[in-house]
Amino acid sequence: MTYCLGIITRYGLVFGADSRTNAGVDYISTYQKLFDFSDPGQRVVLLAASGNLSMTQAIVNAIQQDLKLMESENIHTLPTLYDITRYIGNKVRVVQEQDRPWLERDGIDSSCTLLLGGQVRGEPPGLYMIYRQGNFIQATPETPFLQIGETKYGKPILDRTLSFDTPLEAAAKCALLSIDSTMRSNISVGPPVDLVMYEANSLFVKHQVRLRVGDPYLMQVRKQWEISLRQAFEQMPNIEWGYGEENVLMESGVGNGESGIGSRE
Amino acid sequence: MTYCLGIITRYGLVFGADSRTNAGVDYISTYQKLFDFSDPGQRVVLLAASGNLSMTQAIVNAIQQDLKLMESENIHTLPTLYDITRYIGNKVRVVQEQDRPWLERDGIDSSCTLLLGGQVRGEPPGLYMIYRQGNFIQATPETPFLQIGETKYGKPILDRTLSFDTPLEAAAKCALLSIDSTMRSNISVGPPVDLVMYEANSLFVKHQVRLRVGDPYLMQVRKQWEISLRQAFEQMPNIEWGYGEENVLMESGVGNGESGIGSRE
Repeated sequence: MTYCLGIITRYGLVFGADSRTNAGVDYISTYQKLFDFSDPGQRVVLLAASGNLSMTQAIVNAIQQDLKLMESENIHTLPTLYDITRYIGNKVRVVQEQDRPWLERDGIDSSCTLLLGGQVRGEPPGLYMIYRQGNFIQATPETPFLQIGETKYGKPILDRTLSFDTPLEAAAKCALLSIDSTMRSNISVGPPVDLVMYEANSLFVKHQVRLRVGDPYLMQVRKQWEISLRQAFEQMPNIEWGYGEENVLMESGVGNGESGIGSRE
Repeated sequence: MTYCLGIITRYGLVFGADSRTNAGVDYISTYQKLFDFSDPGQRVVLLAASGNLSMTQAIVNAIQQDLKLMESENIHTLPTLYDITRYIGNKVRVVQEQDRPWLERDGIDSSCTLLLGGQVRGEPPGLYMIYRQGNFIQATPETPFLQIGETKYGKPILDRTLSFDTPLEAAAKCALLSIDSTMRSNISVGPPVDLVMYEANSLFVKHQVRLRVGDPYLMQVRKQWEISLRQAFEQMPNIEWGYGEENVLMESGVGNGESGIGSRE
């Protein structure tokens, strides 16, 4: 399994990804899922990949080949982030066309989903999600984050704390906690965790970190977070139990007293 | 969708459930999913249901009928919680046998999953999850909670804060936040929220509450929680960005400098 997320705020972008892949529970390995295709000073292009590893590796390879062969259309020459996204969507389509029938006839899932974010000089930063079909959507100020892979465990913290106005450092912490929550609840998502913070208009990836298994910072974050959650419980107002109310849960019970259910004396 | 959870600690049980059901996004309604079949002073029996509504209603109805007709085997006469669980598992099997083929031929999901918890006089409290196949598992001190329905959004908070030693009031707050997180992230899970707290050996459901849409307590909990989470962010140690490190994300990029990718001057 995989968990990657991208966040866009008015201050820039945050990308995060785990590195665990598995083919069943008895074959677990580590693969990088977050890639930096930036051309420093000109453009920042970050790509995160989830889904079938042979598919996502083929896509990354195709992007790299176009760069190496200096094809006229490549990730460094295309004029806008939108064009880059469409270009990668086309790579997804080529790879799907090529391999999908062979996987399908053995019942293997060939799906893959990508996140693309960054900034091209002269444009504002952008964040996109590219589907296996090659089409894509863009994150907006109303929905300033996109997730791929095992998305649910890490979503509540984003829903509750993130907005387009969140400072970049806070967004990065939020991303890390979102990934840590996912790792805590799903063993097939695991470290190293790659984290990138990109300040809008810098056109340069200055802040990145790889947190490996047992990283002291990662352990400190987890410990501090659990302490904070417990403190938050203590601050929570006590539940006002409905002593006075009728026993609402027995309303649909049979008899309501006739058979003893629902009586409360 | 549905979200129900049961928690067992050394101090007793907590049950929580939302009340929203949907047949597609254009048909949403409210149904109670948490039922109290207790015989106060003798036994406490709580049942939470998820899955196909016609199935779960048929199961609840079958239980109620046996009580009404005073069948020799009913939820008030069976000697142990284990026997009650097996009895309900059998009800699940009867209902599945009866209706499943008719649903399947129209491609309708007939699955249902139940949580059963409580205490029979003379026994310790127990908590079980009953599968659609009628078999079941029991919660243990190592895994003191069970969830059914839309389980993922609400799991991180349980994983991080709950243990068999958690005081009952804290476990109830944890359950409420787990449900609230799920409601926040999945619109098909919604209020009213039913919450029950059962103190071990009291053989009596004393603490229960139904929190309706816009309930001031529910709103206060959500607000306070979001404030606490933001405070927790502030307490989190700052990320130590890997300024000194090589750009690890470009390790697998082409060229590493040759094409400009990976260079960091």
